[in-house]
Amino acid sequence: MKINMKRLMSNLYEIGDMGKTEEGYNRIEFSREYFEAAELFLNKLKKSGLKAWIDDVGNVIGERPGTDSDLPYIIIGSHLDTVRNGGLYDGALGVVCAFECIEILEEENIKMRHPLRIVAFNAEEGLRLGGTFGSIAIFGTGDIEKENNLEELPELGLTMKNIRDSKWEDNKIGAYLELHIEQGDQLNKSNKTIGIVNGIVGIERYRIKINGESNHGGTTSMESRKDAVKTMGEVITYMYSLCEKYPHPFVFTIGDIQVSPACYNVIPEYAELFVEIRDLNRENIDSFITDIKKFSEKYNDTKIEFFHVLEKKPYMLNKEIRKIIETVCIEKDISFMELSSGAGHDAMCMPEDKPAAMIFVPSKDGVSHNKKEFTSEYDIETGTLIMYLSLLGMDAEI
Amino acid sequence: MKINMKRLMSNLYEIGDMGKTEEGYNRIEFSREYFEAAELFLNKLKKSGLKAWIDDVGNVIGERPGTDSDLPYIIIGSHLDTVRNGGLYDGALGVVCAFECIEILEEENIKMRHPLRIVAFNAEEGLRLGGTFGSIAIFGTGDIEKENNLEELPELGLTMKNIRDSKWEDNKIGAYLELHIEQGDQLNKSNKTIGIVNGIVGIERYRIKINGESNHGGTTSMESRKDAVKTMGEVITYMYSLCEKYPHPFVFTIGDIQVSPACYNVIPEYAELFVEIRDLNRENIDSFITDIKKFSEKYNDTKIEFFHVLEKKPYMLNKEIRKIIETVCIEKDISFMELSSGAGHDAMCMPEDKPAAMIFVPSKDGVSHNKKEFTSEYDIETGTLIMYLSLLGMDAEI
Repeated sequence: MKINMKRLMSNLYEIGDMGKTEEGYNRIEFSREYFEAAELFLNKLKKSGLKAWIDDVGNVIGERPGTDSDLPYIIIGSHLDTVRNGGLYDGALGVVCAFECIEILEEENIKMRHPLRIVAFNAEEGLRLGGTFGSIAIFGTGDIEKENNLEELPELGLTMKNIRDSKWEDNKIGAYLELHIEQGDQLNKSNKTIGIVNGIVGIERYRIKINGESNHGGTTSMESRKDAVKTMGEVITYMYSLCEKYPHPFVFTIGDIQVSPACYNVIPEYAELFVEIRDLNRENIDSFITDIKKFSEKYNDTKIEFFHVLEKKPYMLNKEIRKIIETVCIEKDISFMELSSGAGHDAMCMPEDKPAAMIFVPSKDGVSHNKKEFTSEYDIETGTLIMYLSLLGMDAEI
Repeated sequence: MKINMKRLMSNLYEIGDMGKTEEGYNRIEFSREYFEAAELFLNKLKKSGLKAWIDDVGNVIGERPGTDSDLPYIIIGSHLDTVRNGGLYDGALGVVCAFECIEILEEENIKMRHPLRIVAFNAEEGLRLGGTFGSIAIFGTGDIEKENNLEELPELGLTMKNIRDSKWEDNKIGAYLELHIEQGDQLNKSNKTIGIVNGIVGIERYRIKINGESNHGGTTSMESRKDAVKTMGEVITYMYSLCEKYPHPFVFTIGDIQVSPACYNVIPEYAELFVEIRDLNRENIDSFITDIKKFSEKYNDTKIEFFHVLEKKPYMLNKEIRKIIETVCIEKDISFMELSSGAGHDAMCMPEDKPAAMIFVPSKDGVSHNKKEFTSEYDIETGTLIMYLSLLGMDAEI
């Protein structure tokens, strides 16, 4: 068998051309550009002989029969949408590599036992509807009314019925395999080609509100102030000092700060930190917050409140499929490492009792969500090879 | 002589009633409520026998002749406008106390050598046109085109000619005396009734911009980050640690913080502090900033930039008049202290070669710009007495 890199890269660039601008790649969920790319991909699936359609929420789906129609689907794919001014590879690469696997299956005339479904998901980035909207609709997981931003539905011409109609029958969902760019720099740093993802980190968000006392910034002596910003500086420094306790992939980000009333000459009434914490281990996240709460207790004049605003549990990927991928890498003498994903992916929307796995390929300098994203053709070809062979392994063993 | 406290307080409440709401006192510069109060006060001046008018920029002016018409005016008064949801006393108290001095002069049939002008200034708070607009127009000081927000002029029906026509002849400007609430808590803390103001602090504003590197908040390891917020926490704590070097009235306020792009899951590209520093001694302000700049040099990954956005020099009040006020306090056995003003006042718009002075009366708990402002009738009566006697002293000695 041979991977047709010319075909694969051409598919990638054709998708990229839909919504490409000076600033980057723009196939925002439900946009005109998104649906242009969806139609383009739909036609490619049909041309390749698959039964293919676009579902009620904009996911592009193609189906290839298996020899045993009683078996559930093996699902391959990734997402077709981008962030605003995103890159060429995030999502789209996984879609075209999955399609290349199907093209090879056809060329090699290989019959799989399982029926195979390829999906190019819509709205993984969640700019309007919240993350992994398309895969949540298909797999029916999570609490979509709570976690996704459904207020936008009417403006997109969607109803709850469209979401319900997009869901697949649970007993038809078999296993899932997705190739994606790493979006981090661990493969780069370790000089490895394949990342076998052990899990996708959990995400928790907190607002930490430090209450001070608003007063005149000219006439109130430094000693008389209840200064929320002063306390904030100390809390921030304490938070970073805690990091040593929690090894990678633990990360936290203070992505925004709000101060009120926000005038040069008014001592703030409060200052608020918008904090996101991610780790594979939920206990680390809880212990991090507990430590900050304990530290906060000493501030009597500037009381600190914690608001827990988002909670997404870590998602562990399937050990058997990870083993299959590892075996393929060893057989083909391809360098690999186990790593975790700091970003969310469609894979984590698979029901927890169904096996899912992910293959990462390197992102140059760890850059993503940016037109500077880059993955070399060697890495793409290798990733597709490992994916193709793992798919055959899954078909045999799952 | 006797201060008529019933009359004085009634004048204060009548002015307060113009624009009074549940939330506070609202006589915003150039508002309907401001002009209602201006008309009300104009009529009081006229009824008391003064020649009185409202000038082109909304200042209310009354004139009482002196026995020597060659002498320049002694000017008394304060501002009539308020902040949004301000208090009863800020500005208005100085206006009615000055008026009470004139009422007593009339009742006692006292002829002063100098012609006397009382002014209720417009737009001291500067919500639309920048601070002390009315007094800058009258005294023609400062660089109004640079320091005030003249873009708003057309909307207020004003032209540059209105400003020029409001200016008084320099050689007619003699001396200035203003009573005002302290807006701080030094008199309260020291249990004194009269504050003799030695100077009005200078004000400088800086934006301190800490440049990081924006990246994915999930996939970028803590070690790989160039985190502007981390550096910001350390800079804030360092700034507060410097305070011990600079005694009162030195103050600094971090009134706002901006983080960009301001998303939970994006490591910020930059974080910016909006800093205001005030002191009577400009060298302290410069040295404070120099220290922060030196401290900032160690951050190679998160370069720090300083933008100097406002500079108002300290204004020293006249020693001879301060001595007159002090003598009056001693003679009347009234407790007093010397202090500086952390807030700007109309007094600082007097040309630097003309003598100006200010008398502060206590603000309960240092509260101002708030409906909770309070000054006791005893303090008001005492302040008016000291002002009246100081005015006579100025007429004799200046």
